[in-house]
Amino acid sequence: MKKINTSPISGAQELLPEQQATFNNLKNKIGEVYHAHGFLSIETPTIDRTEILFAKAGGDTEKQVYKVVKTAEAADEADQALRFDHTVPLARYVVEHESNLTFPFKVTQIGRNFRGERAQKGRFREFYQCDVDVIGRGNLPLAYDADIITTLLDAFEKFELGTPVLPRINNRKILNGLLMELGLNSQAGEVFDIIDHAEKVPPETTKANLEAAGLNKNEITKIVAFANLHGSREFVVKNLKSLGIKDELYNEGVDELDTVLGLIEAQGYQPEADMKIVRGLDYYTGTVFEFVLPEHREIGSVCGGGRYENLTGNFTEQLMPGVGGSIGLTRLFYVLNESGLIKDKMIKPLDYVIVPISENETEFAFETAGKLRAKGYKVDVNLTDKKLGDKLTYAAKIAKSGIVIGEDEVKSGALKAKDFETGETTELKI
Amino acid sequence: MKKINTSPISGAQELLPEQQATFNNLKNKIGEVYHAHGFLSIETPTIDRTEILFAKAGGDTEKQVYKVVKTAEAADEADQALRFDHTVPLARYVVEHESNLTFPFKVTQIGRNFRGERAQKGRFREFYQCDVDVIGRGNLPLAYDADIITTLLDAFEKFELGTPVLPRINNRKILNGLLMELGLNSQAGEVFDIIDHAEKVPPETTKANLEAAGLNKNEITKIVAFANLHGSREFVVKNLKSLGIKDELYNEGVDELDTVLGLIEAQGYQPEADMKIVRGLDYYTGTVFEFVLPEHREIGSVCGGGRYENLTGNFTEQLMPGVGGSIGLTRLFYVLNESGLIKDKMIKPLDYVIVPISENETEFAFETAGKLRAKGYKVDVNLTDKKLGDKLTYAAKIAKSGIVIGEDEVKSGALKAKDFETGETTELKI
Repeated sequence: MKKINTSPISGAQELLPEQQATFNNLKNKIGEVYHAHGFLSIETPTIDRTEILFAKAGGDTEKQVYKVVKTAEAADEADQALRFDHTVPLARYVVEHESNLTFPFKVTQIGRNFRGERAQKGRFREFYQCDVDVIGRGNLPLAYDADIITTLLDAFEKFELGTPVLPRINNRKILNGLLMELGLNSQAGEVFDIIDHAEKVPPETTKANLEAAGLNKNEITKIVAFANLHGSREFVVKNLKSLGIKDELYNEGVDELDTVLGLIEAQGYQPEADMKIVRGLDYYTGTVFEFVLPEHREIGSVCGGGRYENLTGNFTEQLMPGVGGSIGLTRLFYVLNESGLIKDKMIKPLDYVIVPISENETEFAFETAGKLRAKGYKVDVNLTDKKLGDKLTYAAKIAKSGIVIGEDEVKSGALKAKDFETGETTELKI
Repeated sequence: MKKINTSPISGAQELLPEQQATFNNLKNKIGEVYHAHGFLSIETPTIDRTEILFAKAGGDTEKQVYKVVKTAEAADEADQALRFDHTVPLARYVVEHESNLTFPFKVTQIGRNFRGERAQKGRFREFYQCDVDVIGRGNLPLAYDADIITTLLDAFEKFELGTPVLPRINNRKILNGLLMELGLNSQAGEVFDIIDHAEKVPPETTKANLEAAGLNKNEITKIVAFANLHGSREFVVKNLKSLGIKDELYNEGVDELDTVLGLIEAQGYQPEADMKIVRGLDYYTGTVFEFVLPEHREIGSVCGGGRYENLTGNFTEQLMPGVGGSIGLTRLFYVLNESGLIKDKMIKPLDYVIVPISENETEFAFETAGKLRAKGYKVDVNLTDKKLGDKLTYAAKIAKSGIVIGEDEVKSGALKAKDFETGETTELKI
């Protein structure tokens, strides 16, 4: 027989059942929190027209898109590809269904996206993203920026990682305004990029990069000092105001940052203002944020997002400002595992495995399983003719407890469950 | 501005939030029932190597597969395509991870599959399938055939469709054995195909098709009479035994059918034995089944599956018999809607929308929302500066109840919730 390679494709995360149960648990918690905060669930197709997907994208993204070859039967004119994020299909969705939606449209998408990235540890080509967005029609109050961030913070709280989560928040108007004031608007793109990467390189490299972008020593000193500014709302806002910048956009940005942080604090969180957070994507226009685990800085950002004033600009003339954020769950699960943050939380997928000793007990085992399922338990009945010991080994691998049913148990109806972890046996009341 | 077509691709089901909530509710119920019956969740990648996907497939399936064009960055040698079902990736998964799995491996996969079918009402190119399978190593007791069927029946029960669900069950060994006895084994493929389609064409067409396959009048009469046999286990088994067929496979099939139906009856269901159920796919070797809604025959089969003795034959020499079934949820949701079976079950996605009258009440509204969320409710806070009436219209569209918070409410702490359906106002106790 010709040996076929049965490994999954490179860049896919294929989990064993116990790992999958833990992954699903995180995914379900995210969904529950999003719904609890009033976000409505939608799903967009995995396949979309390239005309849509490339309407805004460019450069790197376009290079990573998986195109789809249509079959003879499904032939139509448009080129198609796999979506690389939820944001572009969302823009299409709100324009397409606008008359049937309520605005502000608070929406969540949890699903797989696809990017043909270079193979690398911890990078995935097929991955889950768990997005929340609010889309307004005409305008969208700033309070929704805080709504997005506190929703995501609540999700991380429900993960119970046992390590703090720090939201680092900024507003792109501040740096944009500062660059205007310094007459550096033409270098804005480069400066944003350099600051976005500043934490991944030594400080000298950042200075060298700014010099290469054409900034003089004085400007570099100012930008570096600015980028290093971070801390509590009061501290950062005071410092930003003390710089004496007159630019209108700058001051609007500082006020917005102050307001958004204030609303987050009012809900019991301690966010940090951080001028180094600028986010790579062009479409962000105001608030931007990333979450980190301060005790595990090596992990990098675990969540990010921001405000985009004109998401749907390529599809409609109606102004539709939005704000959103995303948890990249496939990567998050991978890095949390690598850092040992969920190892001891591995979940046994089932509550009980019932082990009938012989075929005579099958019917009673079914009955017992039915009763336990009605109480919400996950229950398997082992129907094999293997030895009792083998059946219990099987049970211990996938379930928290095992229930052996023999002649005596059928007669008396008295059942005992053995907890595989503690070894304790308790009477089962059903 | 160039107008871009914002409709989803042809063959995709894109739902509005209220419809999506109903869809998700069905999907979650399926998952819960599968887990309750002891099936472990796994996910395989959407993209797989064509070498894997085409190992067993052929003909029509191959014509419908969407190939994926890799990007420059994700280049490797193997051709890749989107999976067209969960079964083939499952075969790859159990061979790849065999040493880390427990057998019998009870497994569920719920996810999207892709087939480039000709565009047609109610046919989808991207669709959810909700699969359950049990894979054995070496052998797999017949009782698991009943386990699969009762699990699927339990899922349909939880849907509360308000219309009965009938499991129609057969065993391919019976027809195979009959054809052997009649010396028609060389026409078996054609006869299976003709019987599989018999319900979609007039009886004369079926007879004509059998004649075209080379059967004589006597043989046709026998086959037609056989295919029309259906009813209770006792009735059908008695009739099958009374035909005096000596073929061993035939009698094995009858005994297996008897056993499987008996086990299903023991769990309180009334399945029907039905000789017309043969299933199109070649890989089924024993039990085959389909569910129908007898009061809505126009819908056709809503679920199907069967036993396959050698799923992994292309990947390993280890014999791994399996039995499985699948609910095609995207199509099911479509046909249930078309038949009016879930129209009045449309779910309001949220429990409450809180409407603060002015910005002064925002903080109190957040606090109230937090308390309600802690109780498990889905709660939105409307943060816009729209008129009260507009905010309530928004609330009524997406939530069961609305809570208005003004100065008085903040002072007194006494809150009232208005049920949008009944119009009743009740005091909120939190």
